[in-house]
Amino acid sequence: MSYEKLVRHFRRIGHFEELNAIVQWDQAVNMQPAAGPRRAEAVAALSRVLHEWISEPIVFDWIQEAQSKKEELDPWQKCNLKEIARRHRHATALPADLVEATTRASNTSEQAWRRLRAENDFASFAPYLETVVARQRECAQGLGQALELDPYDALLDTFEPGMRASIVDLAFAPLRDFIPGFIDEVIEDQARREVVIPQGPFSISAQQTFCRRMMDAAGLDLERARIDESHHPFCGGVPDDVRITNRYREDDFLSGLMGVIHESGHGKYEQGLPTQYLEQPVGKARGMVVHESQSLLLEMQVSRGPHFVEFLAGEIPRFFPDQVKEQPHAYSVSNLQRLQTRVERGLIRVDADEVTYPAHVMVRYDLERALIFGDLKVTELPEAWNEKMKQYLGISTLGNDKDGCLQDVHWPAGAFGYFPLYTLGALVAAQLFHAVQSAYPDLAADLQKGDLRRLDRWLKDKVWSRGSSLDLTEMLTRATGKGLDPQFFIAHLKARYTGS
Amino acid sequence: MSYEKLVRHFRRIGHFEELNAIVQWDQAVNMQPAAGPRRAEAVAALSRVLHEWISEPIVFDWIQEAQSKKEELDPWQKCNLKEIARRHRHATALPADLVEATTRASNTSEQAWRRLRAENDFASFAPYLETVVARQRECAQGLGQALELDPYDALLDTFEPGMRASIVDLAFAPLRDFIPGFIDEVIEDQARREVVIPQGPFSISAQQTFCRRMMDAAGLDLERARIDESHHPFCGGVPDDVRITNRYREDDFLSGLMGVIHESGHGKYEQGLPTQYLEQPVGKARGMVVHESQSLLLEMQVSRGPHFVEFLAGEIPRFFPDQVKEQPHAYSVSNLQRLQTRVERGLIRVDADEVTYPAHVMVRYDLERALIFGDLKVTELPEAWNEKMKQYLGISTLGNDKDGCLQDVHWPAGAFGYFPLYTLGALVAAQLFHAVQSAYPDLAADLQKGDLRRLDRWLKDKVWSRGSSLDLTEMLTRATGKGLDPQFFIAHLKARYTGS
Repeated sequence: MSYEKLVRHFRRIGHFEELNAIVQWDQAVNMQPAAGPRRAEAVAALSRVLHEWISEPIVFDWIQEAQSKKEELDPWQKCNLKEIARRHRHATALPADLVEATTRASNTSEQAWRRLRAENDFASFAPYLETVVARQRECAQGLGQALELDPYDALLDTFEPGMRASIVDLAFAPLRDFIPGFIDEVIEDQARREVVIPQGPFSISAQQTFCRRMMDAAGLDLERARIDESHHPFCGGVPDDVRITNRYREDDFLSGLMGVIHESGHGKYEQGLPTQYLEQPVGKARGMVVHESQSLLLEMQVSRGPHFVEFLAGEIPRFFPDQVKEQPHAYSVSNLQRLQTRVERGLIRVDADEVTYPAHVMVRYDLERALIFGDLKVTELPEAWNEKMKQYLGISTLGNDKDGCLQDVHWPAGAFGYFPLYTLGALVAAQLFHAVQSAYPDLAADLQKGDLRRLDRWLKDKVWSRGSSLDLTEMLTRATGKGLDPQFFIAHLKARYTGS
Repeated sequence: MSYEKLVRHFRRIGHFEELNAIVQWDQAVNMQPAAGPRRAEAVAALSRVLHEWISEPIVFDWIQEAQSKKEELDPWQKCNLKEIARRHRHATALPADLVEATTRASNTSEQAWRRLRAENDFASFAPYLETVVARQRECAQGLGQALELDPYDALLDTFEPGMRASIVDLAFAPLRDFIPGFIDEVIEDQARREVVIPQGPFSISAQQTFCRRMMDAAGLDLERARIDESHHPFCGGVPDDVRITNRYREDDFLSGLMGVIHESGHGKYEQGLPTQYLEQPVGKARGMVVHESQSLLLEMQVSRGPHFVEFLAGEIPRFFPDQVKEQPHAYSVSNLQRLQTRVERGLIRVDADEVTYPAHVMVRYDLERALIFGDLKVTELPEAWNEKMKQYLGISTLGNDKDGCLQDVHWPAGAFGYFPLYTLGALVAAQLFHAVQSAYPDLAADLQKGDLRRLDRWLKDKVWSRGSSLDLTEMLTRATGKGLDPQFFIAHLKARYTGS
C-alpha cells in the first residue's frame, strides 16, 4: 500500500533527521574548530541526501495513490499524509540549482557578516546581503508559484505552515498602536520604584545545580534531557534526549536561569510530542510560532509571573545562602518580581524584555517585507533601520550598524519570514495561558508551589501531543475557542506592567 | 570517467561515515539511556544506507570500467580503486538476509550477555552464543567463497585486510613456546624487588590536567582532539577532531594516564592520515593490527620504557606536589619503572600487562578457531577455556565463567577473527620501534626529554601518511626491511623484563 511505503520512506528520513540533530548539537557544543570545514561538508552532504529523498519522484506517485485511497486511513494517518505531501511540495518547489546558489550565498554572507559586524562595516557587507536578498526573492517567487502563495507568504509558510502576512498584519495592527506609548508609560512608572540588584559572584557550579533544580520544577524530564554550555543558548537534540545549552555569568544568576527556563519550554514541547509518531512528519513539532509559544509561555507567562516568583524566592536561599544573608532585600518576593519584569529601551533584540521585544520585531518585519517586495534597497537599510527604531522604540542607531541592522544573524544567513514569528509566539503564549487559567481558576496556587503538573497536562493535551496534526489556527481554536487574537497579549502586558 | 564517479560516490559515503563516528561517540559519552532504543534504530538505518551505497550494482560497473583504464590513474588513485573494489566485494559477498540475521543475533546476544555475565550464568547464555556462532560460520563460509579465502581467513580479512591464519600461526608459534615459561621467570624475578605503590587520593581534576600535559608531550594535537569520560576508554571521532575518552580512579593516577596515552596512540594515527584522501577509502586507517600497533607503540614501547619514565618522573611533581613530598620513594625513576612494568597472572585480558597479554589472546585464538571450524561446541566452552588458561597462564577459571569465557564482549557481539589482532599489534609495535631505534641510535635522548618529534616524523612517514595504500606486510617491509617477525617482540620482552 502506498501509504505504508511513504511511512517506511519517511521513517528513514526521520532517523537521519535525528542523527542530524545530534551532529548539529555536537557542532555547537563539542566540535574542535579545526574540524569545521570538513564537518560543514559532511552536514551539507546529509542535507542534500535528505532533500533528494523527500523530493524523489516516486514519493509524488505514492502520495497521489495514497490520497486516492484516503478513506482507508485513520485521522492521524490522514494528517501524516498531508504533512508528507506538504514537505514533498516544499522540497520540489525550487530547482536544485537555485537551492544550491541560495545556500552558497547564505554561507558566504554569514561568514562575511561575522567579520564585518565586528568591524561595524555595513558598506562592505552590503554586496553580500544584496546577493542573499536577490536569491531570497527568487526563492519566494518560485515557492509562491509552486504553493500558490504570495512570495512573502511562501517564506512564512516554510517556518510556520499556514502562516500568512494577512494574519501577521492583523495581529500586529493593535501592537503598532499600543506598544510605543506603553513602553513610555511602563518605564516612567518603573522609574518611581527602586530595584535592588543581587550582587555576585554566583559560582557557576552552584548556578548549574540551581538551574537543574528549577528545570526539574519547570517540568522538564531530566532523564530525557541534558544541559551543556555553548556560546548561544539553544534547545536541540531529539524528543528522547533533548539537548539544552546555556551560558552562565558569575555576576548574574537570573539571566542564566531564565535562559534554561526558556529553553526548557522548547524541550518540554519536544518531550511531549506524540510517541507513536515521532519518526513521521506528523509527529514533529509544528512550526516556529508554536515552538516559541511554548518557551515564552514557560519563561514569560509562568516564570516571570507573580506566583512562580514566590516559589523562586523560596528556592534561592537553598542554593545561594551566603548571598541571601548578605543582601536579603534583593531576594524578597517583591524585589524579585521587579527584577523579573524590568523594562528597558535597548538596541539589541536578544536582550529585550517582553514589552519592548515586539517593537524590535516590527522594525524587522516592516523592513524585510520591503526588501523582499523590492521596495527597499539593501544600501538604504541603515537609514531605514534608524527610522523604524525611532518610530517604535524612540532610539537612534545612526553610525552604529553593529548594534543596528547588522546585529542579527538571520538576514545574513538567508532567514526571511522568520522574525515576526517570535512575536506571534508571544501572542500565542498569552492566549494559551489565559485559556488554561480559565480552565483552572486556582492554577495560581499550583504555581506558587512550583507545581506545573496540571498546566503541563493541559499543554500536553492541547499542544504537545498534537504534533503537526493541527495547524496553528486549528490548535488555537480547539484550545482557546478562537483563532489568534492579540488582545490576550495586550491584556497580559497591561495587567502585569501597569496593574490595569 | 568512472574513477571520478567512484570518488564522488565514496566521498559521500566518507562524509556519512564521519557523521556516524560522531554519533557513536555521542552515544558512549552523552546520550541519555532513555534515547537508546530509538538511537539504535537510527544508527541501524544509517548502517543500512551505507551498505546499500557501497554495494550498489552500478559501483561494480564503475569499478570494472576504471580497472580497464587503470593506466590513467596515479599510484594513490590505483590504491584507492583497489580499496573501493575491496569494500564493494566485502559488502556484496553476503546476502542481505544473512547480514540482517547476523546483526539481529549479535544484538540480542550482546544484550543477554550484559545480564547473564553479571549473573555468572553461562548455561543460560549458551543458546544465544550458539546462534551467534552459527551465523558467524555461515558468514565466514559465504565471505570465504566470495573472496576465495578460507572461512576463518575471511573473518580476519574484514578486520585487517590481507591477514591470514597462516600469518597468525607463524607469528604465534614462537610465542606459544616462549610466553608461559617467561611469565614464570619474570614473576619470580620481580618478587625479589620491592615496589612502592603511590598513595592517593589523586584529585580527578589534577589527573585531567596531568593527562592533557602528557598527551601533548606524547604528540597528540590537542587542537584536533578532545578528551571526555566514558565507561570504557576508547578513541573515536574523525581525523580533524579525535575523540578520546578515559576513566579516572582517585586511588591510581597511572592507570588513567596509561589509558589516555594508549588512546593517544590511536589518535595520532588518525591525525596523521593523508589529508588529501581523508574522505576516500585509501585515506582511512589500515586495519586493526596497524591501529593497535600505534597505540601499543606509544604505550608499551615508549611510555613504559626506561627513557620516557625519566621524563615522567620529572613531570609528576608539578601536578601532584603533595603526594610526591609525602612519599618520595614512590616517584623515583626506578620505582616508577617497576610500577610501569609489573607482571601479574590474572584472569582478565583487559587488565593484563604486555607479558601475559599474548597468553590471553592465544586462549581465545585457539578456541574461536575451533568454534568456527565446528571442532568445539559452545556448551564445551567453559571447560575448554579452563584448560587453555591452565596451559598458557597456569590458572583455573572453573566455576567462574564471569571472569572466564564470559568476560569479553567480542564473541557475544559477533566479533570472531578479532582477538589475535591485538597481539599482532604488539608484535608490529616492537618491530617498528626496533626499526626507528636503528634509524636514530640516539632516540633515547629524545625520549628522556619527552620529545617525540623525531619518532613521530618517522611514524608519519612510514605508517600514518600511508593510509590504506599499503597492506600490513608491505608497510612493514618498507619500514623495517622485512615482513612480520615475532622475534622483535620476544627480544623486547627479554631486554625489558630480564635484562637479557
